[in-house]
Amino acid sequence: MFKEYDVIVVGAGHAGCEAAAAAANLGSSVLLITMNMETIAQMSCNPAMGGVAKGQIVREIDAMGGYSGIISDKTTLQFRMLNLSKGPAMWSPRAQNDRKRFAEEWRLALERTPNVDFWQDMVSSLLLKNNTVVGVKTSLGIEIKGKSVVLTNGTFLNGLIHIGEKKFGGGRTAERSATGLTEQLVELGFEAGRMKTGTPPRVDGRSLNYPVMEEQWGDENPGRFSYTNVERPTEQRCCWITYTNAEVHETLKEGFEKSPMFTGRIKGLGPRYCPSIEDKINRFAERERHQIFVEPEGLHTCEIYVNGFSTSLPEDVQYRALTKIPGFENAKMFRPGYAIEYDYFPPTQLSLTLETKMISNLFFAGQINGTTGYEEAASQGFIAGINAHQKVNDLHELIMKRSESYIGVLIDDLVTKGTDEPYRMFTSRAEHRLLLRQDNADIRLSPIGHQLGLISDERLDLVKQKVANSDAIVAFAKKQSIDMAEANAKLEELGTSTLTQNVKIVSLLGRPQVGIEDIREISTPFKDYLAAFDKETIEQAEIKIKYESYFEKEQEIVNKMQKMEDKDINPDFDYAQLGSLSKEAREKLLKIKPRTLGQASRISGVSPSDISVLMVHMSK
Amino acid sequence: MFKEYDVIVVGAGHAGCEAAAAAANLGSSVLLITMNMETIAQMSCNPAMGGVAKGQIVREIDAMGGYSGIISDKTTLQFRMLNLSKGPAMWSPRAQNDRKRFAEEWRLALERTPNVDFWQDMVSSLLLKNNTVVGVKTSLGIEIKGKSVVLTNGTFLNGLIHIGEKKFGGGRTAERSATGLTEQLVELGFEAGRMKTGTPPRVDGRSLNYPVMEEQWGDENPGRFSYTNVERPTEQRCCWITYTNAEVHETLKEGFEKSPMFTGRIKGLGPRYCPSIEDKINRFAERERHQIFVEPEGLHTCEIYVNGFSTSLPEDVQYRALTKIPGFENAKMFRPGYAIEYDYFPPTQLSLTLETKMISNLFFAGQINGTTGYEEAASQGFIAGINAHQKVNDLHELIMKRSESYIGVLIDDLVTKGTDEPYRMFTSRAEHRLLLRQDNADIRLSPIGHQLGLISDERLDLVKQKVANSDAIVAFAKKQSIDMAEANAKLEELGTSTLTQNVKIVSLLGRPQVGIEDIREISTPFKDYLAAFDKETIEQAEIKIKYESYFEKEQEIVNKMQKMEDKDINPDFDYAQLGSLSKEAREKLLKIKPRTLGQASRISGVSPSDISVLMVHMSK
Repeated sequence: MFKEYDVIVVGAGHAGCEAAAAAANLGSSVLLITMNMETIAQMSCNPAMGGVAKGQIVREIDAMGGYSGIISDKTTLQFRMLNLSKGPAMWSPRAQNDRKRFAEEWRLALERTPNVDFWQDMVSSLLLKNNTVVGVKTSLGIEIKGKSVVLTNGTFLNGLIHIGEKKFGGGRTAERSATGLTEQLVELGFEAGRMKTGTPPRVDGRSLNYPVMEEQWGDENPGRFSYTNVERPTEQRCCWITYTNAEVHETLKEGFEKSPMFTGRIKGLGPRYCPSIEDKINRFAERERHQIFVEPEGLHTCEIYVNGFSTSLPEDVQYRALTKIPGFENAKMFRPGYAIEYDYFPPTQLSLTLETKMISNLFFAGQINGTTGYEEAASQGFIAGINAHQKVNDLHELIMKRSESYIGVLIDDLVTKGTDEPYRMFTSRAEHRLLLRQDNADIRLSPIGHQLGLISDERLDLVKQKVANSDAIVAFAKKQSIDMAEANAKLEELGTSTLTQNVKIVSLLGRPQVGIEDIREISTPFKDYLAAFDKETIEQAEIKIKYESYFEKEQEIVNKMQKMEDKDINPDFDYAQLGSLSKEAREKLLKIKPRTLGQASRISGVSPSDISVLMVHMSK
Repeated sequence: MFKEYDVIVVGAGHAGCEAAAAAANLGSSVLLITMNMETIAQMSCNPAMGGVAKGQIVREIDAMGGYSGIISDKTTLQFRMLNLSKGPAMWSPRAQNDRKRFAEEWRLALERTPNVDFWQDMVSSLLLKNNTVVGVKTSLGIEIKGKSVVLTNGTFLNGLIHIGEKKFGGGRTAERSATGLTEQLVELGFEAGRMKTGTPPRVDGRSLNYPVMEEQWGDENPGRFSYTNVERPTEQRCCWITYTNAEVHETLKEGFEKSPMFTGRIKGLGPRYCPSIEDKINRFAERERHQIFVEPEGLHTCEIYVNGFSTSLPEDVQYRALTKIPGFENAKMFRPGYAIEYDYFPPTQLSLTLETKMISNLFFAGQINGTTGYEEAASQGFIAGINAHQKVNDLHELIMKRSESYIGVLIDDLVTKGTDEPYRMFTSRAEHRLLLRQDNADIRLSPIGHQLGLISDERLDLVKQKVANSDAIVAFAKKQSIDMAEANAKLEELGTSTLTQNVKIVSLLGRPQVGIEDIREISTPFKDYLAAFDKETIEQAEIKIKYESYFEKEQEIVNKMQKMEDKDINPDFDYAQLGSLSKEAREKLLKIKPRTLGQASRISGVSPSDISVLMVHMSK
């Protein structure tokens, strides 16, 4: 009934979809198995993509040939570049999406990807041979052979939904949970744990009083995730901001005694940086209010997502508290918020390719690895899909570096340090974040995508052209003087000191108050020169001029550290022979099996002196 | 948390959606409770609306102010008027729909209907007071008050899915079943039974070999369901026809020993006229082949619905048999077909308003009443929603007559005769089908919708205008002669005898070979006169001219029978006092509680002499 596939992907959320697309586009035959073909790429929680550090990840996926950016762009209701008042390393694209359209476009994109087959069923166990996965077995009893398997089970493994004192088995509301896999993996020796996540109530937009809330529109000239020119909806929708207050908090507290979190019924840890509203008022008792983002679920639907109000308190408490929020006085609920507990596997059991150490050709991606977030899941799926293809074709592994991408930081953090609470990406996790910007993800990563075969020659040429063109603009700005007389009125307007002699454009651009568009206004030669270039290229040049010295310093640091990263360690290295390693270091090194000295140095419990021991040994 | 609603609708399939819309449009406050707000108005089986007798039902719903026709028109992939070679009573509109869009448009239509609130939850029991329903209790333990409740649970009540020897609880694949309600209703004294239905496998359209199958396009000038002018997709999609063969049948037979139907694991009866493929080859062993309609699931998706191949045989048998069908040699399956067993309540427990006899203000609609088909469900929901509103507002009941609508036939059949297998509508079930045509549903039923308040004055005026205009065309055709010389060439071309003198248009139109468009061609005055009228009005005039005498005769029969239908019987009439009734008749009359002598006469077991006894008594 089924041929032997190169790659079997289990689960069709953000991780599974990217894994299937990537492996198929590389040439693997892929079978995507989902419990319900109607819910492929369902956004289970907020109808949005990107945000701080997460937006960078979406651009990185896009730069390497993944689909998340394209799908998001096609279904955007509103787009904002966050943190524009900060330096460019903090700029973070974020989109509101039409939930239904997002799922539909993902499914259509997969249908249009040759080599992706679909099968609706539940995978209940893996087929194994000598510690190598060779396929899956489904709830229908079908055995399907696959040279590799990518597990992306999301919240479905033994999923248990909590609302107040009520509990239901399920992977999402009204959807069945998945059983069997965890039990088999634990039997095989895998360590498994429980995590918890949650989602807020959805309300009837027709029942809200918008005028008392703050409008939040998207950017006037909306950017995009994808470096390709995807056609995007022309219409945008407004979001709103409102706040909780003491009365809301008091009402929520009335439900604490029935809270599945506070009474210990939920064992798994939840996402620290995306806490439930009851968590927030409990942990930050001094805060008088918390922000609530009121987000439409689609272009046409009246359903509203109450971002910031995730909760598993009893539904009547949810309701009463909601109605005390300004604008929500007459709110009608469509669905209550809930918490869900699910199985995950501590990701230190994986190598940097996302392959499990214990079972060859078996890859894990997404929430099964203890992460939270669509973007984190999608990027892991993308890398796992690539590595599954590479592995079964005896091609080189793809290991993303911390210095070249957030994706590299994410995977290295997971695999090297592990996590016992849902892991979310932040800019602060990336020590080289100055270099890992949303504006240069294409420059950083398209060559890797091209080398793999996921980025076309034409697309790579466009990136090269962008680099060359922005360099040319920089060169022009270094050479071209600006006329003192023409400039001074503008400089005064910008609140910066006037010139006493003509200067080069670069020197003016060095001032924080002056932007490249200001100079374009006051210099006709510059204006004429820029006419040939697009917005992103000009922006790239401006960023280079303003921040190049910082970037160079950061790059020097990277280069120095790179020596550690380049020192490969054999994963099967016999640490027992190094008597001078501390006991803890030896244990941890044996468990993590770091690939490089750099990775070894990041393992908690491995001290600088342990690293010295290793270095000395390796230099022999 | 919830106000007291006028009408609570449980379930959001075709029946529930129509019930909610109708009651709300009449002015009731409505709460629509669904287990999953993502699957409102899901087409669980084929992606199509209408067909023989069913298309008439959709037009009837539309004529009275329901939404099914509008939603279907908005999401049509292909439209065909079936049976055009037969008389107009057999003409039956049928549309292929985009499954996703259909569900989406229904949900948006409900969101745009003031008075409809939504709640995602499972109703687990009814709240009762003195044999009157006063609300529902949900799986979250919430009690919601409602003056009336419409149950439209579809296949979800204790739903059990079968594929070969495998069984899963579920209302649809990967969706949870609903529990609690049946048990409570049985406790209350309701009789419940099990029925079974099934669905075919879905396949990957990219894997089919279309050139070896017959193309089936929609009509060149597609009609529509709705009498309103809904904007419709311009693009149409092709379907295909192929056939099973002996090899397919032999392969399927290999799975018979694992068939849940043939081995007795499925207890409920399935739809006789929509049998599974294994049923067909079993019951019609002499048939060498069965037709398979290959239907796209949407405008863009590659998923294909294999109409005619419903099956619950093991998935590997399904697959092997499929690949022996011409065009399917390399078919890849997306999802296997399956059978589903579910609870229903024999509909003789209902009155003609669809209210239960045992519990006041409780209405049942759709598969819970033992019917099959989207259209049958939608029409019951529509009537139940109307009657729920009428009941709680002390307004007159709406009882549809057999002589005025298929909906009347459907409900009278269910309530008077009951059913122990899934009931499907056919033209043959309607004794007055000559009058119950798709072309005149607006003329028959818009006045009823208008009187209720579901059809606007403007819309009723349009219907009156259509009648007046078509009458005017008939009058013109009776008066206007046609020139022999001008006509004869055309008549010869049409293969009918030429004229020897000038005749009136009506007389030529009486000939079966001659259509109104032919006359338009050969008569300038007629052509000029018709220029002012639209296609449907002209068609209506033509039908009147050609078939008026038949219609008149049928109407006479209706009028005669109407005397029986007009003889009301008090539902609480004490049949015990009529000693001369047969024992069986007395039992059946007590059970069915017919509203009229006409209804009494249709009860199985009530003989003409029993009716005479009743007539004699009533005329006293």
